[in-house]
Amino acid sequence: MSEVDPGGMGGPVLVIGTGLIGTSVALSLRRAEVDVLLSDVDEPALREAVEMGAGRRVDESDVPAIVVVAVPPRHASRVLADASTRFPRATLTDVTSVKERVIRQAVEAGADPTRLVGGHPMAGREVSGASGGRADLLDDRLWVVTPLEGSGIEHVRQVHRLVSACGAYPVEMTLADHDAAVALVSHTPQVLASVLAAQLADSDQDYVRVAGQGLRDMTRIAASNVPMWSDILAANAGPVADVLDGIVARLQQTSAALREGAAERMAADPRVERVLAAGVAGQRMIPGKHGAAPSAYREVSVMLADRPGELGRLFGAAAEAGVNLEDVRIEHVLGRPSGLVDISVRPDVGEELIAALLERGFDVRS
Amino acid sequence: MSEVDPGGMGGPVLVIGTGLIGTSVALSLRRAEVDVLLSDVDEPALREAVEMGAGRRVDESDVPAIVVVAVPPRHASRVLADASTRFPRATLTDVTSVKERVIRQAVEAGADPTRLVGGHPMAGREVSGASGGRADLLDDRLWVVTPLEGSGIEHVRQVHRLVSACGAYPVEMTLADHDAAVALVSHTPQVLASVLAAQLADSDQDYVRVAGQGLRDMTRIAASNVPMWSDILAANAGPVADVLDGIVARLQQTSAALREGAAERMAADPRVERVLAAGVAGQRMIPGKHGAAPSAYREVSVMLADRPGELGRLFGAAAEAGVNLEDVRIEHVLGRPSGLVDISVRPDVGEELIAALLERGFDVRS
Repeated sequence: MSEVDPGGMGGPVLVIGTGLIGTSVALSLRRAEVDVLLSDVDEPALREAVEMGAGRRVDESDVPAIVVVAVPPRHASRVLADASTRFPRATLTDVTSVKERVIRQAVEAGADPTRLVGGHPMAGREVSGASGGRADLLDDRLWVVTPLEGSGIEHVRQVHRLVSACGAYPVEMTLADHDAAVALVSHTPQVLASVLAAQLADSDQDYVRVAGQGLRDMTRIAASNVPMWSDILAANAGPVADVLDGIVARLQQTSAALREGAAERMAADPRVERVLAAGVAGQRMIPGKHGAAPSAYREVSVMLADRPGELGRLFGAAAEAGVNLEDVRIEHVLGRPSGLVDISVRPDVGEELIAALLERGFDVRS
Repeated sequence: MSEVDPGGMGGPVLVIGTGLIGTSVALSLRRAEVDVLLSDVDEPALREAVEMGAGRRVDESDVPAIVVVAVPPRHASRVLADASTRFPRATLTDVTSVKERVIRQAVEAGADPTRLVGGHPMAGREVSGASGGRADLLDDRLWVVTPLEGSGIEHVRQVHRLVSACGAYPVEMTLADHDAAVALVSHTPQVLASVLAAQLADSDQDYVRVAGQGLRDMTRIAASNVPMWSDILAANAGPVADVLDGIVARLQQTSAALREGAAERMAADPRVERVLAAGVAGQRMIPGKHGAAPSAYREVSVMLADRPGELGRLFGAAAEAGVNLEDVRIEHVLGRPSGLVDISVRPDVGEELIAALLERGFDVRS
């Protein structure tokens, strides 16, 4: 062992699977000067990752301190079990987006549960392959770490070191909590978006012409990779079905309340109001940037002329005023650009930004 | 009658109700030099609209060519019927977001069906009151026009002239088609967003920490005005319940397929794949800006440092290159800004933009 041990992991890290996430993990570890070993059954993918500087090919004499399994979910359990046999002292982890099924099946297949600590980096861009890998893909991302009850504390610590060396933030959860969480915040929303968009495909094409920004937001993730999502949903089927059933129950109650209200010509229904109010409360719970609630920002709306350079002029003005923009949204209107730009800034600089924009002749709407 | 007749409507336009939409209609008509009469039961709102230059108070001697009813949905039918009696030759229209119930009840209450042509301008910002009114709020917006079977052709033409004078684009639909369309593209997505967000409020708070951009997009409109939406849903209850029931059926099929697959440890289920694929197809149907499909744009991703001025520098660079931006999205990551900006441009200027950004040292990702 060399005297220097970047990352403090006591040896090299073997990354098995040089797709988008595996290559990104490897590149970020190399950036931290960790010794990285690579393997992939797909020889061109492995060659590409090596050429990108993601690490060196693993050989018979290598003894990794940590093995990171970054293969497709359906192969992860077997590869974890094989790695456990081949490297009888290494910490074992993975990066699959579903944990209970993958980790349980790995243990059933022979992976040593004392050395197995699952993981899931929350890095969500939808490009694939080694060539999409980036050293900074995991920077500042949440990385869920799922120890088993029997996981040795030293192996849990190793995975925390790995996560930190990649520039991400470790958050510990149980396998079941992780799967329920991603079912709620990621997998079920994907199903809802797909079902809503599917409803459009079944409808009168003219109806879709009146679509606005709300529908566009609600269906954006429906433009997804079908085989990948089909695999994810199958692997997390139980938790997703549980959330779906809760949503179905609420939708049925809402539909029934609407039909009863329609029959009685009621102006409004308290049950429908309760669903809407619960939605307002739930929406406020979602963390914004910097972990702050979305409502923590001041929104400033500006009407722009639709010509080249107006957005540049707007953001240039904000920069001159020394105001950092937390979020930017451009309103879309069917058939035409509306030119309405919503800018979110910290509340304490809102007035400053408005003054700077008015001074430069912008049409500020709030 | 004066010799000049801006807008070609043959007389003044009376706007009843000087809230956001009524005042905006009035201001855009004034911009086109149309003679505008105003009335509102709310005296301060009326005074404000007059002071903003939206028109003059209607008096006993005025004879409007068109009456535009822009009062809250629950009052619209009665106000249309009253206007029909008071102005026995005027064209009658409204701006409410639900048509079948409002227009049928207006006719039942005595409005002349030969002169009644409903309308719904698709202007969606959620600010309210006369003070929020803008002469350009309706510019380039779609404005659905809903003639009755018995509507006189001259009255339909009058409403088209009104819409054009406001800077909007008329699109004719039947009452039922309008209500089914807005149920599909606006009212049901609102219920879905509220129900999904309500599900978060019922869940373990730690789960919501792993939320990403997808969930944020899917729940944004859940942060809505509860009484306003409760009224809208009540007024369009039947069509919304119909769409909800279709979505519930698909969600139940998906949930059942997932549970069966889980029981049989299947890798994926063809029924789930079909829902996902139908979602991809439906999402592609939604018009983008300029009426083009979303996929018609080239997306360029740029990783920015999180410091004041970087967005300004980015858009300044695009402006210098003479490239107009069609859309801008900033990625959000829990706890930290990611600094990843997705820019959509016309495909023919994509390479030009990338070259200009690389030349200025930007970290271009696509």
